Amino acid sequence: MKKVNLAEKLAMFSTHWDPHVVASYNGNDVMVVKFTGEFPFHKHDTTDDFFLILEGEVTLDGEDGDAVTLGPGELCVVPKGMIHRPRATSEAKVLLIEPKGEPNSGDSDRPPATKPTI
Amino acid sequence: MKKVNLAEKLAMFSTHWDPHVVASYNGNDVMVVKFTGEFPFHKHDTTDDFFLILEGEVTLDGEDGDAVTLGPGELCVVPKGMIHRPRATSEAKVLLIEPKGEPNSGDSDRPPATKPTI
Repeated sequence: MKKVNLAEKLAMFSTHWDPHVVASYNGNDVMVVKFTGEFPFHKHDTTDDFFLILEGEVTLDGEDGDAVTLGPGELCVVPKGMIHRPRATSEAKVLLIEPKGEPNSGDSDRPPATKPTI
Repeated sequence: MKKVNLAEKLAMFSTHWDPHVVASYNGNDVMVVKFTGEFPFHKHDTTDDFFLILEGEVTLDGEDGDAVTLGPGELCVVPKGMIHRPRATSEAKVLLIEPKGEPNSGDSDRPPATKPTI
């Protein structure tokens, strides 16, 4: 059994929109990531997308103008197939869970994402 | 898209060792739970077991004397098949992820656990 301290993992990198794998759960990558600015609208056709905010504030925009703004200790699971866009006015730190190798953009034409493990 | 505030969900019940479902991720229950005292040693034969500490301190004991103690912002994924026991000297609040219906005790002879959704 291995303890994972999320703040220590987040201190190991400074890039944005660059998930780093910290654990594995039943074939899913458990990741930490830093957001700032806007990510493109996208969807994941075959998987839900799990976001838990650790620090800062993140808005998830839906295609239809629907939006949720999440702070620390708040989570949202975006259902598979739903177009969405994460954005953060200032840096936010997030726990993400997605199936291993899922592209960040959800684009199935892309090769599996190579996400570093820390 | 639905925002889940974990502190608000945890304020809705006071029982211990009684996970409440707050979201669903690809057929997994995302749950909040309060621990105090010791849970029996057990294992889950077919699934990993995800623990993220939200408040307080939790020790996960392994059968062989191996133990990890986790505080807020720390997580551990107990691999499937590994005998373990969560314990907490005082109340701790935890985010758990397990496949829908998995018994808390991992006992496959029991019917699927009926965990309330809040």
